[in-house]
Amino acid sequence: MEQKQLTDLLEQMTLDEKVGQLLQLAAEFYSEKAEEKTGPMTNLGLTHEDINNAGTTLGISGAKEAIRVQNAYMENNRLGIPTILMADIIHGFRTIFPIPLGLGSSWDVEAAKKVAEISAKEAAVSGLHVTFSPMVDLVRDPRWGRVMESTGEDPFLNSRFAEAFVKGYQGDDLKNDFFRVAACVKHFAAYGAAIGGRDYNTVNMSERQLRDSYLPGYKAALDAGAKLVMTSFNTVDGVPATGNKWLFRDVLRKEFGFDGVVISDWGAVIELIPHGVAADKKQAAELAIKAGVDIEMMTTCYTENLKELIEENIVAESILDEAVLRILTLKNDLGLFENPHRGADVTLEKEVVLSKEHRAIARDIARKSIVLLKNENILPLSKQEKVAIVGPAADSHDVIGVWSWQGKKDEAISLAQGVEQLNAEYVIGKEAFDYFKPSQAAIEEAVALAKEADKVVLALGEEDWMSGEASSRSDIRLPQAQLDLFDAIQAVNDNIIVTLYNGRPLDLQGIDSAKAIIEAWFPGTEGGAALADILYGEYNPSARLSMSFPETVGQVPVYYNYDNTGRPYKPGSEEKYETKYLDVSNFAKYPFGFGLSYSEFACTDFKLSSNEMKPDETITVSITVENQSDISGEETVQLYIRDQIGEVVRPVKELKGFEKVTLQAHEKKNVQFTITEELLRYVHSDQALTSDAGTFDVMIGSNSRDVITKTFKLLK
Amino acid sequence: MEQKQLTDLLEQMTLDEKVGQLLQLAAEFYSEKAEEKTGPMTNLGLTHEDINNAGTTLGISGAKEAIRVQNAYMENNRLGIPTILMADIIHGFRTIFPIPLGLGSSWDVEAAKKVAEISAKEAAVSGLHVTFSPMVDLVRDPRWGRVMESTGEDPFLNSRFAEAFVKGYQGDDLKNDFFRVAACVKHFAAYGAAIGGRDYNTVNMSERQLRDSYLPGYKAALDAGAKLVMTSFNTVDGVPATGNKWLFRDVLRKEFGFDGVVISDWGAVIELIPHGVAADKKQAAELAIKAGVDIEMMTTCYTENLKELIEENIVAESILDEAVLRILTLKNDLGLFENPHRGADVTLEKEVVLSKEHRAIARDIARKSIVLLKNENILPLSKQEKVAIVGPAADSHDVIGVWSWQGKKDEAISLAQGVEQLNAEYVIGKEAFDYFKPSQAAIEEAVALAKEADKVVLALGEEDWMSGEASSRSDIRLPQAQLDLFDAIQAVNDNIIVTLYNGRPLDLQGIDSAKAIIEAWFPGTEGGAALADILYGEYNPSARLSMSFPETVGQVPVYYNYDNTGRPYKPGSEEKYETKYLDVSNFAKYPFGFGLSYSEFACTDFKLSSNEMKPDETITVSITVENQSDISGEETVQLYIRDQIGEVVRPVKELKGFEKVTLQAHEKKNVQFTITEELLRYVHSDQALTSDAGTFDVMIGSNSRDVITKTFKLLK
Repeated sequence: MEQKQLTDLLEQMTLDEKVGQLLQLAAEFYSEKAEEKTGPMTNLGLTHEDINNAGTTLGISGAKEAIRVQNAYMENNRLGIPTILMADIIHGFRTIFPIPLGLGSSWDVEAAKKVAEISAKEAAVSGLHVTFSPMVDLVRDPRWGRVMESTGEDPFLNSRFAEAFVKGYQGDDLKNDFFRVAACVKHFAAYGAAIGGRDYNTVNMSERQLRDSYLPGYKAALDAGAKLVMTSFNTVDGVPATGNKWLFRDVLRKEFGFDGVVISDWGAVIELIPHGVAADKKQAAELAIKAGVDIEMMTTCYTENLKELIEENIVAESILDEAVLRILTLKNDLGLFENPHRGADVTLEKEVVLSKEHRAIARDIARKSIVLLKNENILPLSKQEKVAIVGPAADSHDVIGVWSWQGKKDEAISLAQGVEQLNAEYVIGKEAFDYFKPSQAAIEEAVALAKEADKVVLALGEEDWMSGEASSRSDIRLPQAQLDLFDAIQAVNDNIIVTLYNGRPLDLQGIDSAKAIIEAWFPGTEGGAALADILYGEYNPSARLSMSFPETVGQVPVYYNYDNTGRPYKPGSEEKYETKYLDVSNFAKYPFGFGLSYSEFACTDFKLSSNEMKPDETITVSITVENQSDISGEETVQLYIRDQIGEVVRPVKELKGFEKVTLQAHEKKNVQFTITEELLRYVHSDQALTSDAGTFDVMIGSNSRDVITKTFKLLK
Repeated sequence: MEQKQLTDLLEQMTLDEKVGQLLQLAAEFYSEKAEEKTGPMTNLGLTHEDINNAGTTLGISGAKEAIRVQNAYMENNRLGIPTILMADIIHGFRTIFPIPLGLGSSWDVEAAKKVAEISAKEAAVSGLHVTFSPMVDLVRDPRWGRVMESTGEDPFLNSRFAEAFVKGYQGDDLKNDFFRVAACVKHFAAYGAAIGGRDYNTVNMSERQLRDSYLPGYKAALDAGAKLVMTSFNTVDGVPATGNKWLFRDVLRKEFGFDGVVISDWGAVIELIPHGVAADKKQAAELAIKAGVDIEMMTTCYTENLKELIEENIVAESILDEAVLRILTLKNDLGLFENPHRGADVTLEKEVVLSKEHRAIARDIARKSIVLLKNENILPLSKQEKVAIVGPAADSHDVIGVWSWQGKKDEAISLAQGVEQLNAEYVIGKEAFDYFKPSQAAIEEAVALAKEADKVVLALGEEDWMSGEASSRSDIRLPQAQLDLFDAIQAVNDNIIVTLYNGRPLDLQGIDSAKAIIEAWFPGTEGGAALADILYGEYNPSARLSMSFPETVGQVPVYYNYDNTGRPYKPGSEEKYETKYLDVSNFAKYPFGFGLSYSEFACTDFKLSSNEMKPDETITVSITVENQSDISGEETVQLYIRDQIGEVVRPVKELKGFEKVTLQAHEKKNVQFTITEELLRYVHSDQALTSDAGTFDVMIGSNSRDVITKTFKLLK
């Protein structure tokens, strides 16, 4: 359709039909079975006409069902407007990839793009048009359950992933490439900064901090062309995002130039009432539509009140029209007027979904996301060694993590299965092993197996429900029973390799005397195979943390890019009057960017092409990376910059570039980064994103802690 | 002196002399012994002339010494201008009162006023003119060591204490009442919000939050007439307070109308360099003087650079003149031109300092500050019971806490001494008992004594250095050895009363199965006597927490006046999708306002004089409080208000009034509060402090958790 046709269509619509476009309903409302609809309809007080007019849907899946719903919808809709089928495809559709925090650890944006592309393809042939992804909320507090859904604590890295996800989902020609889906960036804004890590909690920060650290990720996704934006549940300076006119009208629309669709998170419009900024659904509707929320997900504040608000001249009809036009435009951008079923294809669905090819890619990407945290010369294992694989996660299929809507645990590979596939020598117990309350028999069996083995792979972790939405934990250690198990095993065999499945940085106290620790996150459908590949050196670990692991929860928040203070912390210093604790370091146990390899790398020959630059000039940073070992491997060279003197206090370092380099045994490669003036900008007190003349530190390292430094001057 | 004389004096001053007025030096520079000065002078690169011109001093004490220093100073000063003798008198001079967090727990502003008055008197006769008190920083994170120096987490309560301290220090006629000292409110601003509770750390919050929660305490102190303001070490939205022009020029001076002296905290001007906003001392001086910092404490950025900055027209001389005039005005307000020694009096000093009368008042106020947290019918003790007093704090004199400059531990009363004074039956061990590593003999003795006793008073706590400046803790439990001791005692005698000396809300896990828990804070010189009075019912406990005790550090921050969310936490609810943790409540173990009595109180007959009011009207809240027990006691009736619907999300409750009521056995009293429109104001998105028409909850309770509610409407 041409733009003119869309505006013509808008003109034909009644007020009710226009209001209807703003409602999003879940799958049950479109069930073939009348009895499945009745309850939800009664609960929301909806008529059949409301359902026929509701502009978009949530959570319908399967090509056959999608085609049926779309056909029925268009028949029932007076103007034959198609609906949009949306869903949460977060880290894979049926083929499940590592959770986003794991993907973040890959530092491999092409891998993330591939994940999005495959997810899109599986979802698209299953009839979906839009995914509520990527989630790019910056996270600093591991207590928050939804850190698993983020790529981490760094604005720069998050931004690169945000772009990759959007490009992977949407491709280059969304309208005509039916293997793609539209991306919805979420949650605007700063949802990850919930006070105390309690989900949905108040967020408080200055506008400058918001712009400097939290908004760049969303902005990157928008610049990459994301078609939708989802509101966050939290407040932004006291005003819930879903009713925050400044945030959506001024920042998102005017300043960022976003002209796509804004959708509320689940129930977030009606939540303006418990939030205490709206007295009733009518006021909630008024605040949300005025803020610029186009689609109301799963509640009916708009449906019940928008007409009246317009008739009473409280809301201008032009505001509604703009929202409807944006939704129609999205439908048109998806080509739904011409091809209402888009990629939905019952035959292709069988071929594409969970294909062998997708599983192979999932395995490869899972390997790239698994972080080797510690290795005292015990890994990799040899296939001839006698290895006992014990613990609750030894043969667990709980490896895909939450937000795996169509993913199935029974299609996922456990660690034991992965090792089995490698034909390695291993033993595993027969007793079921609970994560929290293992039976005495299970514990005794594990200890007995460990005693007889050369080495013990102790497979521990969180169950999937312990992270994700509404899954905040005040205690981020492993469950006590697992710590006790570690002690019992260690008493009989000190050669312990701990593997971890979990959705957040953990406090590793209690298991940190293991000889090796592997952070596998929830690695997805092929998770156990990928973990086995790491254990046995079939893949040389290359992942790096994208979120710091604290020493203890009492230290939270711990993040590498903290602002400097007037009394800076100097580890090991005898000086009392520093920014620090009496009882623990300020620093992370394992910092941002950290991860080991079976290879040994060294960086030499660190050079800057100049020690000063003007704004229109660049400086080339050059470094030689050498694999000093006999094993080929991959190093991630990280570039950090610090502005020595700012108009406001600047972080001690900020990631400004990285490159993954594959090196054969004893191979050397030169890596170069280009420093532009744009990389030196930050948000000043007046909210302007500009750079200052002055001296900058350039740091190169294999993680955020261990760096070598040079300086240069920006001249102005 | 008249104002005209001050400006005349200013005109006579050379640029060097003017710059000199802005320097504050410590006691050693004024030592009679040349060799004591030499090192510090060399370190700071100061000449004798610099010292003769330095406008104020820090930490000189004793009438004789003060008189000597002032005489010498005035002789050496070309214009005979007197110096000001300043010092940190925080919770008593030589007679030490409870730490401010303890005083906060008294909810007794008259007591705080008395503390300030006595502190001022002891300090004044010892020659001091200014105290760096009150500290009114709002605190929400018990990891921060300096919570001990605050009155707590509530803006309203802190404001009442702030006023009381200022009035107590300064009296009604500062110039002529030589028993008073000028008050310096600190630390402007928001020092208490250090991220992670790490001292001196970055502070980040929105301007609205700053104004709504953090600034009121300082404002109250200024409105009460505080003569000085101290800068804080932290940043306020990225700009260190000490170089923050917006904070000092726009907010403090223009908006709040403060025309007194602004002093940097110790070294805070030079710290603009490590903070990363100044390249060198010259730029640090420029930023600080432009921000409006009049006195530079202990560093020489001004001394070395101001003259040059003025000569180079980077800083206007008028800016310097204003600062000097403010300092001269303070000297004049203190009457120093006419009476350079003010209250310094060697004879009076002997009478006044640590007088019997002061000790008696200290004992009384300490009793008012000790909070009974738990009592399962085990307290009060009878003097005839066989009580074992054991643990590291049983006979410890470490009861005065830090910031007790002139206070002496050996002048303080231990718990054992306090009990002895009461002629009660008790036993105590002979072995020295370490807080962290008690000897086996000490533990065995304690267990043996406990085994033979009817009841055990287990005296635990922090040593004084574990709280206060630069004393942040990530783990806020008692030291492990004390938890182990608790277990060992409980194994032989379950009748345990735990008493605690400490400087912060603690995580009480490990001792919370005691039958009684008494929070004594660091109660001061008469601390042990006061605690004995509580234990034996010589005083019926009346204190209430002014800062919440968390369940665990993983829950921090926990404060009663949190903002509501869109998915509010409902304790015990089965609903997953709420603002909460999987593993612990959102709420405090012991909430703000909580404290037990040996009496039992009930509130009945809760009435509002009207259920609506216009802005110029008031509503009277009336409640009847009844002592339902046979023991006379004191109840603290607390009034909380919630604005149901705000332009921004409002806290679930906010303290807006309180009254302490003494009731004889079975006595009833009526308590009334007046609700004015002013009490209903809050800071809106546009930073305006206004009220909204709408419905408000009025809550009455004996703590912030257990309240009864009525509503009224504000009509506009």
